[in-house]
Amino acid sequence: MMIPTIAIKRGAIEIIDQRALPGEYRIVAMRSVAELCDAITTLAIRGAPALGVAAAFGLLLAVEERWGADGEYFFDEDGERAASFAGRAGMDEIRAVLDGARDSIAATRPTAVNLFWALGRMAACYQARYESAEDLLRALHREAVSIHREDRAMSRRLGENGASLLKDRDSVLTHCNAGGLATSGFGTALGVVYAAVESGKRICVYAGETRPLLQGARLTAWECIQRKIPVTVITDGMAAHVMSNGLVSCVIVGADRIAANGDTANKIGTLNLAIIAKRYGVPFYVAAPSSTIDFSIRSGAGIAIEERSADEVKRFAGMPVAPEQAQAMNPAFDVTPAELISAIITEHGVHYPPFNGVWSASAGGSA
Amino acid sequence: MMIPTIAIKRGAIEIIDQRALPGEYRIVAMRSVAELCDAITTLAIRGAPALGVAAAFGLLLAVEERWGADGEYFFDEDGERAASFAGRAGMDEIRAVLDGARDSIAATRPTAVNLFWALGRMAACYQARYESAEDLLRALHREAVSIHREDRAMSRRLGENGASLLKDRDSVLTHCNAGGLATSGFGTALGVVYAAVESGKRICVYAGETRPLLQGARLTAWECIQRKIPVTVITDGMAAHVMSNGLVSCVIVGADRIAANGDTANKIGTLNLAIIAKRYGVPFYVAAPSSTIDFSIRSGAGIAIEERSADEVKRFAGMPVAPEQAQAMNPAFDVTPAELISAIITEHGVHYPPFNGVWSASAGGSA
Repeated sequence: MMIPTIAIKRGAIEIIDQRALPGEYRIVAMRSVAELCDAITTLAIRGAPALGVAAAFGLLLAVEERWGADGEYFFDEDGERAASFAGRAGMDEIRAVLDGARDSIAATRPTAVNLFWALGRMAACYQARYESAEDLLRALHREAVSIHREDRAMSRRLGENGASLLKDRDSVLTHCNAGGLATSGFGTALGVVYAAVESGKRICVYAGETRPLLQGARLTAWECIQRKIPVTVITDGMAAHVMSNGLVSCVIVGADRIAANGDTANKIGTLNLAIIAKRYGVPFYVAAPSSTIDFSIRSGAGIAIEERSADEVKRFAGMPVAPEQAQAMNPAFDVTPAELISAIITEHGVHYPPFNGVWSASAGGSA
Repeated sequence: MMIPTIAIKRGAIEIIDQRALPGEYRIVAMRSVAELCDAITTLAIRGAPALGVAAAFGLLLAVEERWGADGEYFFDEDGERAASFAGRAGMDEIRAVLDGARDSIAATRPTAVNLFWALGRMAACYQARYESAEDLLRALHREAVSIHREDRAMSRRLGENGASLLKDRDSVLTHCNAGGLATSGFGTALGVVYAAVESGKRICVYAGETRPLLQGARLTAWECIQRKIPVTVITDGMAAHVMSNGLVSCVIVGADRIAANGDTANKIGTLNLAIIAKRYGVPFYVAAPSSTIDFSIRSGAGIAIEERSADEVKRFAGMPVAPEQAQAMNPAFDVTPAELISAIITEHGVHYPPFNGVWSASAGGSA
């Protein structure tokens, strides 16, 4: 089962609005780069791998927005094109529009490297030489579709690699949502669970609710219910209680950026879990595509952490839960040092510490 | 500044309704044991020391409820009595009513030992021999007022003992609410902060929001604002992030029950903090009156942990935040092993590990 997290359809980007889940399952269509940026900023779409796909599609959207007309579109998921682009603009003009869109999308959220990775791939594509504007757009479309398809294939392979770490009747504690909604449909941390379940193992999930925005309670629990996997929601403060009571076989989380040494930025609260898991001897796994590894950053100290609005902490569904005069912090991520990570699961295999130097070897496909 | 957390006034128990804070400051009067039990169960009044006082006043309320008439009352905070009890009932009848009230109040919440400690003191009082029903009630009133007064004096002394551990410009991370609202007005963990501030030290507070019921965001932040102490609300998942960034000088929490060996039951999420504090070398202090120590229990394994409704986790202000079909856990407390506790602060002094055997020595008033 793949969740239709994101798709380009008839020139618009369609996403599941993750702000509305689990109360409402709603597909929304975005028809401008501004709408897409707003969707990313407000977390209608989120999850590092999904953001990469959204960024790639976003550049196609820029072209639709600028030159598409009513009922016409240039790009579709299946490569169908209802309108011919010929003659509407020259390549330089197209590249200028794409540069602007790239800058807007890059400014939405700073931490997930996949966003920049996908924009980089798309930019390399549209900056190459082409015979015609049509050729440029055809190549750009192919690149975006490739990023989307590769993401789906990546999470399948990653899931299968990680599934080898799970035994029948294991219980997995996860944080935030690193499932189908965070990717192009299958998931990273949850993809490991799904692959294990598909191979016949009985797995149950503890979903840390993940304040302030409750992606664990809202999204991870929703995905598990869709797949009929037993899921128990806990507040983030219950992690040590459940681990000290022996209820957790392992922790698996996703990642938004992994430094070259293995230090991992992920949703705020992840570091709590890693420290607690260490104390109780519970394996702590990070599951992420290799595109999440940022070789340009040596350690976690170099990872920019997004600070979001204090209102996300001080209000809940518009209702104040703290005094107006109180301050609040709202870092979206924390950094877990590599020494607390038992293994990193990518589409290339299961990588054990020390992580430095593992990457190049594993890029070929180690197990 | 003392917060009027609880008082007996004109035969009723008046409390600050802690469910309504910080949005609304509302004093509610309870006129029956059933109303009091409901207030305890729904956390309109909460906090281990405050529950002890509520339990003591609750037995006076049972007498008001049974024999009081419109406009008449037997008990008041100041010992004023508007009506004479003489001749309304015999001592056996009174004791039977008190036994019933004691059982009802004891059944509200299992973990905070102070509730049982106060009921035990009150029972010893009303089970003693008296010349008359009037004498019995007079003694019972005196005992309840003593418990209330002692609680106020206790938290002052405890605060002063703990304040010696804080330096000027320290920042204290606390969890849930162990302040004036959790006691008869001053506080245990927050009492330490208040005493330090009163002695001229500049202290800032990080208030862990404390899901599911957000006592940290709602109550601790509110108390700090009342006292003009800088307070920053964080979600429970941010604890490791703030400690790893060196923002926390020490952690101070309250306690609901302390076993003879020092193992401490406190609000769910406390164990997370203790483990994380240990990793970063941040001192972790428990602040509680000596009445919180349960000598009948050797270790934390013997402490009953209240399991509350899953709806507190799955809903927020009536709105679902997790799918209906998902399970949820809701233990109200966890147990922090003594080895993670740097010191326990009581009204008798600051007690360092090992805690076994410290108690009897300190009961005399060690510093």
